[in-house]
Amino acid sequence: MSAPSCEFCGSPGGPVLWQNDLCRVVRVDEPDYPGFLRVILKRHAREMTDLDESERAGLMAVVWAVESAVREVMEPDKMNVASLGNMTPHVHWHVIPRFGDDRHFPSPIWATPRRERAPSPEREARAQRLAGALLDRLGR
Amino acid sequence: MSAPSCEFCGSPGGPVLWQNDLCRVVRVDEPDYPGFLRVILKRHAREMTDLDESERAGLMAVVWAVESAVREVMEPDKMNVASLGNMTPHVHWHVIPRFGDDRHFPSPIWATPRRERAPSPEREARAQRLAGALLDRLGR
Repeated sequence: MSAPSCEFCGSPGGPVLWQNDLCRVVRVDEPDYPGFLRVILKRHAREMTDLDESERAGLMAVVWAVESAVREVMEPDKMNVASLGNMTPHVHWHVIPRFGDDRHFPSPIWATPRRERAPSPEREARAQRLAGALLDRLGR
Repeated sequence: MSAPSCEFCGSPGGPVLWQNDLCRVVRVDEPDYPGFLRVILKRHAREMTDLDESERAGLMAVVWAVESAVREVMEPDKMNVASLGNMTPHVHWHVIPRFGDDRHFPSPIWATPRRERAPSPEREARAQRLAGALLDRLGR
């Protein structure tokens, strides 16, 4: 089921790196945060507690596989995961590798930036390896 | 195991509304956000993917029970859940009822506020019922 005018019902929400029947993993276009991925439920639901237990477990298993892949590939100082959806109330998870020298650290990425930062070609290169790391962990 | 100088190893992190061997649920002292609860793992671990599968499932079961109780009691417009831990790298979940007229909506609560808001005695009164709602869902 999809909801009219819902962004994540009407479009993938970014380049799809992996998907199954339940959800897709997309790359987030956020130049300050290479390696930032989003796990988006395919069907339209508003809250995690609107899912049944097996859907919820299936989705969280993907979220944790994504966190593991991001940790392995990006080697961040900290992982941030969040399900907010105030702008797009369709269940999705932000999975964000954080670094002590990133634009907002230790604040959440939604806060006022603490510093300017030049792009990191090394982190961008690592982020290119995430699709492969997801396939290794989650299969096709 | 606890970590020296870790805030959540050294103190409960707020008034404890419910707890088991694995985690505790505390009230967050945030006057703009009555009903904001935090689920804190008891042992020291940095990331969700540092837990084994059964610990992780046990913790998430509490997070979802908390979300359900908060939805029932607070009747928010949206739920936000997040595991960040940049300041206190000890696994904990923010469970936050959001309202269209709250200080930051639709931004995350960590963003620049969008408006001023007088306290809501009605929401504060509802938040007082959360301890009971948690007991109903999670038992003693």
